Amino acid sequence: MALTQPGLIYLAAGFTDPDTLPIEEVRIIVDDVLSDENCGKSALQYGSTKGLPKLRELTAERLQRVDLGLPPGVADADRVVITHGSQQLLYLLIEALCDPGDVVLVEDPTYFVFLGLLEGRGVKTHGVKLTPDGVDLDHFDYVLRRLVSSGEIKRLKLFYIVTYAHNPTGIVWSFVKKAAVLERLLRIEKLAGHPVFLVEDAAYRDLLFENRHENSALKISDSKARVIYVGTYTKPFATGIRVGFGLLPPQLIDPVLNIKANHDFGTSQFIQYVVCRALESGLYERHLGVLHKHYRAKALVMKDAIEKWFPWYIDVWHPTGGLYYWIRLPRHQCTGPRSKLFRTALRQGVLYVPGCYCYARDPWRKVPNHEMRLSFGSASASEIQKGVKRLGEVIKSISSYHTRRQT
Amino acid sequence: MALTQPGLIYLAAGFTDPDTLPIEEVRIIVDDVLSDENCGKSALQYGSTKGLPKLRELTAERLQRVDLGLPPGVADADRVVITHGSQQLLYLLIEALCDPGDVVLVEDPTYFVFLGLLEGRGVKTHGVKLTPDGVDLDHFDYVLRRLVSSGEIKRLKLFYIVTYAHNPTGIVWSFVKKAAVLERLLRIEKLAGHPVFLVEDAAYRDLLFENRHENSALKISDSKARVIYVGTYTKPFATGIRVGFGLLPPQLIDPVLNIKANHDFGTSQFIQYVVCRALESGLYERHLGVLHKHYRAKALVMKDAIEKWFPWYIDVWHPTGGLYYWIRLPRHQCTGPRSKLFRTALRQGVLYVPGCYCYARDPWRKVPNHEMRLSFGSASASEIQKGVKRLGEVIKSISSYHTRRQT
Repeated sequence: MALTQPGLIYLAAGFTDPDTLPIEEVRIIVDDVLSDENCGKSALQYGSTKGLPKLRELTAERLQRVDLGLPPGVADADRVVITHGSQQLLYLLIEALCDPGDVVLVEDPTYFVFLGLLEGRGVKTHGVKLTPDGVDLDHFDYVLRRLVSSGEIKRLKLFYIVTYAHNPTGIVWSFVKKAAVLERLLRIEKLAGHPVFLVEDAAYRDLLFENRHENSALKISDSKARVIYVGTYTKPFATGIRVGFGLLPPQLIDPVLNIKANHDFGTSQFIQYVVCRALESGLYERHLGVLHKHYRAKALVMKDAIEKWFPWYIDVWHPTGGLYYWIRLPRHQCTGPRSKLFRTALRQGVLYVPGCYCYARDPWRKVPNHEMRLSFGSASASEIQKGVKRLGEVIKSISSYHTRRQT
Repeated sequence: MALTQPGLIYLAAGFTDPDTLPIEEVRIIVDDVLSDENCGKSALQYGSTKGLPKLRELTAERLQRVDLGLPPGVADADRVVITHGSQQLLYLLIEALCDPGDVVLVEDPTYFVFLGLLEGRGVKTHGVKLTPDGVDLDHFDYVLRRLVSSGEIKRLKLFYIVTYAHNPTGIVWSFVKKAAVLERLLRIEKLAGHPVFLVEDAAYRDLLFENRHENSALKISDSKARVIYVGTYTKPFATGIRVGFGLLPPQLIDPVLNIKANHDFGTSQFIQYVVCRALESGLYERHLGVLHKHYRAKALVMKDAIEKWFPWYIDVWHPTGGLYYWIRLPRHQCTGPRSKLFRTALRQGVLYVPGCYCYARDPWRKVPNHEMRLSFGSASASEIQKGVKRLGEVIKSISSYHTRRQT
């Protein structure tokens, strides 16, 4: 793919806006940490595999604050594991829980890097249709029944969901849906013959435009043994500082830490100190306020441009946060990497993520091929306007052709 | 293990000396990087999975400088992959090259964390006896013959060696031995039916007390396709900044990067910038000079203490660098974690690494159980003296007992 084409507008990558990076703030934090000899020694020395105790405490406290009314003992620093980005936690989880040939459920569509991870480890996937407040429960029931009748239920290990400002669709899961999903997973465990976990990826929670206090699945009573909560400080703060975390069921902590120790002994103390200080000082929360305003404004720029330049018949999913718009074209208008639309758009200097990348290789249905993810993360306002205009013109020019055969 | 016992002297861990950490230097580097807006934006943003181009270049250039007379094209920035510590590179390699049940050769004794990694992934290991300049080639031949006759040769994937200031014995491999080993591995490939790699872990190379220009295995002609060179900036600079690297055969780069992308997308740009600047400015090399003097002095303190307090009949391996002394007691004097010696030493407030931890679980021989690794890394001079004195007294007091049955 000609990704270095001059003048190309990237509406594809999930990069955050370089203008929002807290450069001066991080400079002051590091200056502060390394001006104190004891802190400095600790920040530049090995730490524990689990992560900096203070950062684990702050993480638990913050969850308790954000997730109003969590049952006692749930947001426990002892259950927090710090990783090199939340991606590493996902990897460790799959290593700890899944053998090749095991089955993982995902949303249709979902975070495509996670699909790559599963594929890389030989894990099978089935998709459950996503609606604007979480998965379609009827379809979930159907998938579970089918897993039972095919015998695959014995290999089902977990259901992975992205619950806040979902990547790629931008939706927020309702708490009720999470509870309904967990209840079904618990019911199915007898047939599975082993625990089936609900992995709640809340990577974009801190990037919601408004503080929507939809509770996490941790709020569900008895979540403790089955809900894995995954978060990150990277995405909303500085992606170059790779610090994510998981809040794990007690029985998973040691298995995950044993693998983490083999990966890298533990997350860089130095970057953990930076995040820890940002949280402690209130800088992190203040930065979120700035970000929300910034991205809301850029989302509006993209919305206006889409309304102005895209044809009337497309279906736009308006994001509640995060970095993406999800666009659905009519079924016959293919958007895949080999489609006329994608190639023409690239020639016209605009790159998007083909929707088909966001679907599991699920033999039970055809992969939809008429959607696209547009990012307003790193592009400037004028690039967004220009990129959407180019793309809209390409869509209109292509729509007269019949592109069904192209993928 | 009562690792938080008050007054306990740790001669076990491979921590570097906190007094050597370049705290002020890192503060100035970060200040510098983040005072420049463009640099700052890049340091706090996602980078590439392979690593910062400038850091990869500097790494290749430095190898070319240190490893005099490397054939052209060997120290190539394109072959360098940056990881979260060299440990992560080892993990990625094993993921890329080994399936459960595959066989890896290691030195007897070797770096025990690597043994844990192999075990965690279901890889079998056989040990090859170590002598003061590398493995015993006769024993290596014997092991290879046995692998052939047992059919295990078909599963042999690599030989892992620690070539500079070896952990735990402190020896330096001679170049001639590396060449002899690689030559044998190449010869055996026909029987193996696939490539067999030589992994040269040079983690302690920059911690050699004197600049001993023993060439790496990269110097061997035709090393390019089979030698994997692993290094780190973490150990000699600041262990809290996790930056290691590998120089990989071209055919392994993509497989390793694909797994790395699933692990964490790429190493934190921020910590890569810190290391990059330290190399660029000459600070890294200056720091090594300070370190060498510091650790040589501490090694001498430990040497004197051992000569003074340990019984005359022990066998001491004097290190050429790194952080460790390797001590061999008579065969009947067990040093394992359940031995009277270990437990008494712990009660007397001194902790060492039992030698048995450094041996693969190789069914072809019994694990030696009469050795210990003593670290002079993080303990102060007076702790070293006190710790060695306590340990010497314990050894002498135990030696009158017959401890053969204890492990």
